[in-house]
Amino acid sequence: MPTRSDRIAFQGELGAFSHMAIRQLLGASATAVPCPSFEAMFTALAEGRVRGAMVPIENTLHGSVHENYDHLLRFNLPIVGETSVRIVHNLIVPAGVKAASVRRVYSHPVALNQCLNFFREHPDIEKATFYDTAGSVKMISEERPEGAAAIAGALAAELYGCRIVKRSIEDDKENYTRFFLLRRKPVPKSARAPKRGYKTTLVFTVRNVPGALFRALAALALRDIDLNKIESRPFKGRRWEYLFYADFLGHTEEAAVRHALSHLSEVADMVKVLGCYPRGD
Amino acid sequence: MPTRSDRIAFQGELGAFSHMAIRQLLGASATAVPCPSFEAMFTALAEGRVRGAMVPIENTLHGSVHENYDHLLRFNLPIVGETSVRIVHNLIVPAGVKAASVRRVYSHPVALNQCLNFFREHPDIEKATFYDTAGSVKMISEERPEGAAAIAGALAAELYGCRIVKRSIEDDKENYTRFFLLRRKPVPKSARAPKRGYKTTLVFTVRNVPGALFRALAALALRDIDLNKIESRPFKGRRWEYLFYADFLGHTEEAAVRHALSHLSEVADMVKVLGCYPRGD
Repeated sequence: MPTRSDRIAFQGELGAFSHMAIRQLLGASATAVPCPSFEAMFTALAEGRVRGAMVPIENTLHGSVHENYDHLLRFNLPIVGETSVRIVHNLIVPAGVKAASVRRVYSHPVALNQCLNFFREHPDIEKATFYDTAGSVKMISEERPEGAAAIAGALAAELYGCRIVKRSIEDDKENYTRFFLLRRKPVPKSARAPKRGYKTTLVFTVRNVPGALFRALAALALRDIDLNKIESRPFKGRRWEYLFYADFLGHTEEAAVRHALSHLSEVADMVKVLGCYPRGD
Repeated sequence: MPTRSDRIAFQGELGAFSHMAIRQLLGASATAVPCPSFEAMFTALAEGRVRGAMVPIENTLHGSVHENYDHLLRFNLPIVGETSVRIVHNLIVPAGVKAASVRRVYSHPVALNQCLNFFREHPDIEKATFYDTAGSVKMISEERPEGAAAIAGALAAELYGCRIVKRSIEDDKENYTRFFLLRRKPVPKSARAPKRGYKTTLVFTVRNVPGALFRALAALALRDIDLNKIESRPFKGRRWEYLFYADFLGHTEEAAVRHALSHLSEVADMVKVLGCYPRGD
């Protein structure tokens, strides 16, 4: 009887950075299931076609992925884990192709723009935009256009049988993407605490009056709860209301957190816990 | 003698949304100067080759542009204005081309992904990635590939003599980008207050101890200063320090704001005012 594998949805092609996040957090036992869009990935999990989803939520260069916070609010799929992947871009060629023959490099424009030093040093090499980083590796491996290379993560080179000719050509080494692992049901607090403790992510709204956020944060600060992230969402069309994302250390099954949430719901119009999960590295 | 025009740098090709922001805030008197990267745009202003720069700083779907906050910290170029542009995507063809002939649509992948409903309704039309939205309009107008259209803002169609065949094909109408106008010198507070008052943007750091942000916000809240934006920056590599962006109503030449900043500098390790400017719409 085949084992029921841990199928995890992600947005993009096999070999994408989201796929690397699945490997990093869950190891080789998980099966990565590509989806064409973020919404398709959330829908796949909501309908039970997969057992988890790996969702990029913020990047050190590009900020929070608001679209995915919107999906987290709309779908009731709890966060059960987090992990951060360093975005390392590599120059990749099809097997048997020489580095010296490269004249044109395919990748997503964001990736191409994160490797400007490389293109400055190689003015004879042309940039060519493609819809996806890992997808560009798949394309050069299948179509083998003359003089073509791609820029993507190392996993894409491995999966499509290609060769990395230059590692880590990204300009900024402090480029990390943080991911949430979602499941259909929350994971209860374990008797043995995880090494780095728990984190809780929530969304709340306050009316736009001076000091409203200050009063909301008092609910946490007065209980010595350590805030890791706070962000106001620029809301067009709802000018007089603000949405906040917050991450703090602790679990909703702890008394201090329970009291803080009860206090917060007195001063906020809406409070929604998106999940409690072991704090990632 | 030619008039010295108000040359404003922006990232992208003529007709980009940044170019639309320049028109929206400064009218037709300003001359938009395209730059290949954000850094090039900041450098052009720092070296006095232009008199201003129009900088995208946050988007309602994609969050804050951290790279530009980094440049704001590094270059001492004050914010003197703000404006928000609604991102309206249009289907554009070269002059003389019929809408029915469109088989392939060029644009930046982010723009293509913001028009998925259009592509779902037209499964016979193919998406083709291009490095820039306005650049894709320029390309189809010059090269006129058979069956080609582009997706971009209305200004690009106007500038390259192309025709909009379908307006506003973006999926999400609540897609706005907020821009800062930078100059080389701050603009002093005027005797007559602007219609919607002033806003101040600052960056500060606090040590990662429970309640540190709460104490920092007290400096503003205790003086009834209205916070419009607060965001913590995920800092990899400086794990024990947090960087915050904040916008609030008021001008540093007002007593309450002066006192708040003095109080804030007692509890924050670093406080830097990035500019005071008339509040935009």
